[in-house]
Amino acid sequence: MADKINRVVLAYSGGLDTSVILKWLQQNYGCEVVTFTADLGQGEELEPARAKAELMGVRPEHIFIDDLREEFVRDFVFPMMRANALYEGLYLLGTSIARPLIAKRQIEIARQVGADAVSHGATGKGNDQVRFELGYYALQPDIRVIAPWREWDLTSRSKLIEFAEAHQIPIPRDKRGEAPFSTDANLLHTSSEGLVLEDPWAEVPDYVFSRTVNPEDAPDQPQLVTVAFERGDAVAVDGEALSPAALLARLNDLGRAHGIGRLDLVENRFVGMKSRGMYETPGGTILHAAHRAIEQLTLDRGAAHLKDELAPRYAELIYNGFWYSPEREMLQAAIDHSQEKVDGEVRLKLYKGGVHVVGRRSANSLYSEKVVTFEDDAGAYDQRDAAGFIKLNALRLRLLGRRDASGDEPVSHTARR
Amino acid sequence: MADKINRVVLAYSGGLDTSVILKWLQQNYGCEVVTFTADLGQGEELEPARAKAELMGVRPEHIFIDDLREEFVRDFVFPMMRANALYEGLYLLGTSIARPLIAKRQIEIARQVGADAVSHGATGKGNDQVRFELGYYALQPDIRVIAPWREWDLTSRSKLIEFAEAHQIPIPRDKRGEAPFSTDANLLHTSSEGLVLEDPWAEVPDYVFSRTVNPEDAPDQPQLVTVAFERGDAVAVDGEALSPAALLARLNDLGRAHGIGRLDLVENRFVGMKSRGMYETPGGTILHAAHRAIEQLTLDRGAAHLKDELAPRYAELIYNGFWYSPEREMLQAAIDHSQEKVDGEVRLKLYKGGVHVVGRRSANSLYSEKVVTFEDDAGAYDQRDAAGFIKLNALRLRLLGRRDASGDEPVSHTARR
Amino acid sequence: MADKINRVVLAYSGGLDTSVILKWLQQNYGCEVVTFTADLGQGEELEPARAKAELMGVRPEHIFIDDLREEFVRDFVFPMMRANALYEGLYLLGTSIARPLIAKRQIEIARQVGADAVSHGATGKGNDQVRFELGYYALQPDIRVIAPWREWDLTSRSKLIEFAEAHQIPIPRDKRGEAPFSTDANLLHTSSEGLVLEDPWAEVPDYVFSRTVNPEDAPDQPQLVTVAFERGDAVAVDGEALSPAALLARLNDLGRAHGIGRLDLVENRFVGMKSRGMYETPGGTILHAAHRAIEQLTLDRGAAHLKDELAPRYAELIYNGFWYSPEREMLQAAIDHSQEKVDGEVRLKLYKGGVHVVGRRSANSLYSEKVVTFEDDAGAYDQRDAAGFIKLNALRLRLLGRRDASGDEPVSHTARR
Amino acid sequence: MADKINRVVLAYSGGLDTSVILKWLQQNYGCEVVTFTADLGQGEELEPARAKAELMGVRPEHIFIDDLREEFVRDFVFPMMRANALYEGLYLLGTSIARPLIAKRQIEIARQVGADAVSHGATGKGNDQVRFELGYYALQPDIRVIAPWREWDLTSRSKLIEFAEAHQIPIPRDKRGEAPFSTDANLLHTSSEGLVLEDPWAEVPDYVFSRTVNPEDAPDQPQLVTVAFERGDAVAVDGEALSPAALLARLNDLGRAHGIGRLDLVENRFVGMKSRGMYETPGGTILHAAHRAIEQLTLDRGAAHLKDELAPRYAELIYNGFWYSPEREMLQAAIDHSQEKVDGEVRLKLYKGGVHVVGRRSANSLYSEKVVTFEDDAGAYDQRDAAGFIKLNALRLRLLGRRDASGDEPVSHTARR
Repeated sequence: MADKINRVVLAYSGGLDTSVILKWLQQNYGCEVVTFTADLGQGEELEPARAKAELMGVRPEHIFIDDLREEFVRDFVFPMMRANALYEGLYLLGTSIARPLIAKRQIEIARQVGADAVSHGATGKGNDQVRFELGYYALQPDIRVIAPWREWDLTSRSKLIEFAEAHQIPIPRDKRGEAPFSTDANLLHTSSEGLVLEDPWAEVPDYVFSRTVNPEDAPDQPQLVTVAFERGDAVAVDGEALSPAALLARLNDLGRAHGIGRLDLVENRFVGMKSRGMYETPGGTILHAAHRAIEQLTLDRGAAHLKDELAPRYAELIYNGFWYSPEREMLQAAIDHSQEKVDGEVRLKLYKGGVHVVGRRSANSLYSEKVVTFEDDAGAYDQRDAAGFIKLNALRLRLLGRRDASGDEPVSHTARR
Repeated sequence: MADKINRVVLAYSGGLDTSVILKWLQQNYGCEVVTFTADLGQGEELEPARAKAELMGVRPEHIFIDDLREEFVRDFVFPMMRANALYEGLYLLGTSIARPLIAKRQIEIARQVGADAVSHGATGKGNDQVRFELGYYALQPDIRVIAPWREWDLTSRSKLIEFAEAHQIPIPRDKRGEAPFSTDANLLHTSSEGLVLEDPWAEVPDYVFSRTVNPEDAPDQPQLVTVAFERGDAVAVDGEALSPAALLARLNDLGRAHGIGRLDLVENRFVGMKSRGMYETPGGTILHAAHRAIEQLTLDRGAAHLKDELAPRYAELIYNGFWYSPEREMLQAAIDHSQEKVDGEVRLKLYKGGVHVVGRRSANSLYSEKVVTFEDDAGAYDQRDAAGFIKLNALRLRLLGRRDASGDEPVSHTARR
Repeated sequence: MADKINRVVLAYSGGLDTSVILKWLQQNYGCEVVTFTADLGQGEELEPARAKAELMGVRPEHIFIDDLREEFVRDFVFPMMRANALYEGLYLLGTSIARPLIAKRQIEIARQVGADAVSHGATGKGNDQVRFELGYYALQPDIRVIAPWREWDLTSRSKLIEFAEAHQIPIPRDKRGEAPFSTDANLLHTSSEGLVLEDPWAEVPDYVFSRTVNPEDAPDQPQLVTVAFERGDAVAVDGEALSPAALLARLNDLGRAHGIGRLDLVENRFVGMKSRGMYETPGGTILHAAHRAIEQLTLDRGAAHLKDELAPRYAELIYNGFWYSPEREMLQAAIDHSQEKVDGEVRLKLYKGGVHVVGRRSANSLYSEKVVTFEDDAGAYDQRDAAGFIKLNALRLRLLGRRDASGDEPVSHTARR
Repeated sequence: MADKINRVVLAYSGGLDTSVILKWLQQNYGCEVVTFTADLGQGEELEPARAKAELMGVRPEHIFIDDLREEFVRDFVFPMMRANALYEGLYLLGTSIARPLIAKRQIEIARQVGADAVSHGATGKGNDQVRFELGYYALQPDIRVIAPWREWDLTSRSKLIEFAEAHQIPIPRDKRGEAPFSTDANLLHTSSEGLVLEDPWAEVPDYVFSRTVNPEDAPDQPQLVTVAFERGDAVAVDGEALSPAALLARLNDLGRAHGIGRLDLVENRFVGMKSRGMYETPGGTILHAAHRAIEQLTLDRGAAHLKDELAPRYAELIYNGFWYSPEREMLQAAIDHSQEKVDGEVRLKLYKGGVHVVGRRSANSLYSEKVVTFEDDAGAYDQRDAAGFIKLNALRLRLLGRRDASGDEPVSHTARR
């Protein structure tokens, strides 16, 4: 498999695994490694990654450390939020949505430095390998992709440690032993999976959580927060205009404090197996609830229902790694078209792990108190229209009923087969 | 409009409005009225309805009071729960799902007593008139339907009271003044709407809630509950086998105590307007979460995703009153087919308004620790297969990328149009 | 119903029915009538409509006769063709797609002349009343709509004739007796329905057809035609660049000569009944086939399949009159996004009622002979990738099979329930 | 790759390619080969396959030759026809639908003879490998699959011939040279692809067609045929009751004579590339048209439209090889539910390559002349109901229009972005 590669751009976290990969690429492919480390809001110092890369012989001009937080939220998280996307009804896609951006930046760097390959540290069982590589191939069809976890023989943690020791790769003390679970983090969420989480009947241990307080330890007083939207995107919190990343960070702080956005999920991976994960999406959970609420007021029923029907497919595409696909873009075009008037404010109550919408208002509201009121509506709605409406909606059912009538009993349509 | 009607079956609650309707039907149509009062778990005494009907001259054998709670949950709520149906992403359809059963029983009674018409007390602005009448027409295509609210001139509360007084209809003291909102209740939920709820920016006042404690007043200790499923239906709580209605009642008790299942919603009515409602669905909210969790373990991805794509349509059909339609039945057939192996147990934590799944297990689990494990899987999964999987999934994107490539930059697919 | 109307814009064909309506509006509403006659390519002289309107006292500056053919094809037919829209799998929506344009122009004129109402000649049983009126209301929410067929008592042909005679409305000789069927025509199609067509078992008589020769009378020699596309729209025929309307007219000539585009259909109307119609869509049928063929070459699978899934809904929206709805526009945005690269040429053979695609080519082709070839592909595709692709696609089915295996026989999944 | 296999069941046609595979399996895996040859109506003698297998040392009791024609049509073709399935809008799935049956029978034989592997002759670029193998794995999750075309080095025709000569495998005279295209045939269709067909601009040469006469050579007289249906399945032709396979054969004869069912298609394969094929589906094309026609009369709109929306997905599942998947079965359950009353007769005119429905009738018809008639309907339909129907359907559009109105011009919703 070790055919000639000259220069490879590695998605490099600075951690043990990608450091081993860095060295392994140098050795196994005899190629130059370019490192790319993205700040997506994972909350880690990135400069140590630079030092480590230098230590392993990466040329300083080949060490890329980029703050992508604003681009991440503005061009990836927000478009997805416009769709109310939930994978399998529940998951806010925090890991999935970060991968296409990393892939895009890697390809940009590859072009810039004239690299002929890219590499990542995702394993061969997961979804992330798919997401990275579909991104690479879509943006640079002839790129070479190196996925060390599918190639090498460092198939156990002890072999990895051994390799690290043999090559003077620093091993964090806490990585000597097996970590009890694996995580991924960015501004939108932290995910945890594996090992102690592998029994789906066993409750997730408390030490797994890192982004939210336990709801039971959250404040006894609820907190009200107001989120303002323009064209479907959140633009302000409690009246303060914020950039996309700053806004999400603010909501994360609120969500963390109130224990919001924990999700214990058994999900279906694109590669065909079920896995169990724990997700913490504090700000994203608030954002999702708020976006639905502002749409309630400003989105027409036809648009809203079409969106609801398209959302599972859209979420599946992102989960499976098809961000850069014509069908995801088509759905995005439809969704974005619907958001032109999705402006206004939503008030939410945060309390002990829960987000509760308590009010929404908008200059673009389609809600008409005059029409809906129980009181005299001064002719805004003629109740007799409903008779014709029902009659014509019923017509096909009546024709059907006449055809299928038999005997004296109404057909039971409800018994289970 | 008052053409000749001989006998009409009225959906009769015993309350002021339907008592006025009873009298109005007798007077206006000069017809015999048959009353039908259903116990759907709304938590009201029904015998007073009998007394009132008798008082207004309904023949004793024409007063029908039926306990439909088990049928309601078994044949309506549970099939709907199998679908994970949520209207507009959030609403558990508690009112919608009761209407087809009432309509069905009314038609059965109409056949039994030889009535030529049916009548209901739903207004001309709401969804319930549609749901009742589509049910009537589907089950008895040539039935006459009388919807007094669309016909009469008792268009204000004072006229209604006046009519009641003029006809010796007892007026509950608290109905003299205008009620501050309107409610509907059954074993699945209580809905509230109108008047004090009509401003969607104003928080719902505390006195509106009747089925749940305020989460802030709920116990400070979380409570664990285990729900067991067979073929997609809940069959036991904490190890105790229960009938459908008893099970839902049990979950309602738990949900009430922990403040679970409140929903403040602005929704789109079938008749074309937006309205704001407050729903309380304590047990149903627990059931919904538990059903999704047991499906996570036992449902194949293909089935699960198809269900997720069909669910918005299915929910819309129920909301709009098309329970007795071929398309709802087709979707039900598909959904029920998927539930054959949906067996097992789910553990949930109830706390301060929240339902949190903390574990699930099943003899029919499709989750395979052996396959998914981070540790050595002894050949259960060959990571190299992933390379081919990705390559072929990427092929069309690569062909596309080659065609559309231009210049040195990867196309940005993410900018908003 | 005759409350005060000052000025009404009538969609006026100049025929007997709308002439009677013109007079009836003047009499019944005591209002000024403004006539609007559109040339949509129906192939009739329009100046006689002017003369007749003048005769009935319409002010010359209130007689609008507009040639809308190019707008019709460019802004309505072509966008719909991009979607490959077929109602109920077969119908090319020739009548449906014209109504929104007429409605739009009527509203424009109403604003221009300060009219407070619009009127049309569609009956109360059909779809066209819905299409007109949804268009009116969407574009001018407070407009008054007068639908004489739902209001007046001229419910039989003889009453209509009588009214015409009584008011000196000229009656074409062939309209004295009952026409044996009813038609609608524009540049896209001619539809025929009613009376002699009402028995769906009886073959449509030959005299019903007006736009196409009988296939049996078509030339014995097939004819080849080449249609060129840009961004999903046809732009040239046999190498000659043509405007949208000119292009459709050219294809109509070809289709007519070869007996192409006849459709005998029993369809489901939006108002709830089934009807039987005969459609002739000569050029549109060629266009539809050609568009599908050029998409085969230039559209990615993901985009193509998404379009196929959305097309029935899109067609239903147009059929039901929801052209000016957010959901139609959302779908259009998605569809249009997919058409950016749909360029190239399609060759078709026209013969005896059939359209047969025989070739297609494009500078934007995604078809790769190099990849697909049975011969040596020089490494363009690694067949071993297929093994991994299949293995991972099969994984969930294998897990399922293991769970559900019982006894020695493979489960039969095929028997009918 | 040659790990220990004891006994393998080969899908064996008796042709050159699978004969080479037979020998190669024996040599390469040192295993016993069991041959399975299915009569699916491909129109070839099967006994020569027996002789050849014996010649190559297969034990007589290990040679399986089964007539599966009735099962094929009854349990695979007919269920698919109920769905009106068309892949990419046009293709009747003739090859796709045969593969699951072959896979099923191979697995049955493998269990019967105690084989540990199965093998097929599909190449590594096509869809058939996927369809076979997904079938194998779904029905027998732990089966070993050998796909010689993905494993061996006989990558050119000359190497194949050489291998055959070296092993005394008889080579049909016409297989010495390269065949100009490749075919697959069964009772439903014949497909042709590759080589002379690889240029999608070049017209398919006449010698490619084998199942239909050229429409230009078809009879100058049209022929009428009547197809009768019960529960969605065809049961009689021109009044003669026929078994499923006999019926399809009869329609094939008719279709062949009239040049019906040719399709020149560029399609998207599941493995990610586009390919060009020529399909001939004479009887299936008639059946498809007839089934749609009988549904027009007997299927409710709600059912019909839901079917139309589900059909592309259903077709894709079959094309991609997911016959034995929960989601295909769910869709089948929905579709089959809709077919209970799809009975009646359809008359079609066959002429010069075209199938034209000219009439349909049914005891279960939902078409009501009384309701639809242009003449007096004696109160079957109240045209005034339409006013209310339209008003309520328009309500949301009016609220929208009011909100979005600006200035004096109606918004143009039609311009291309």
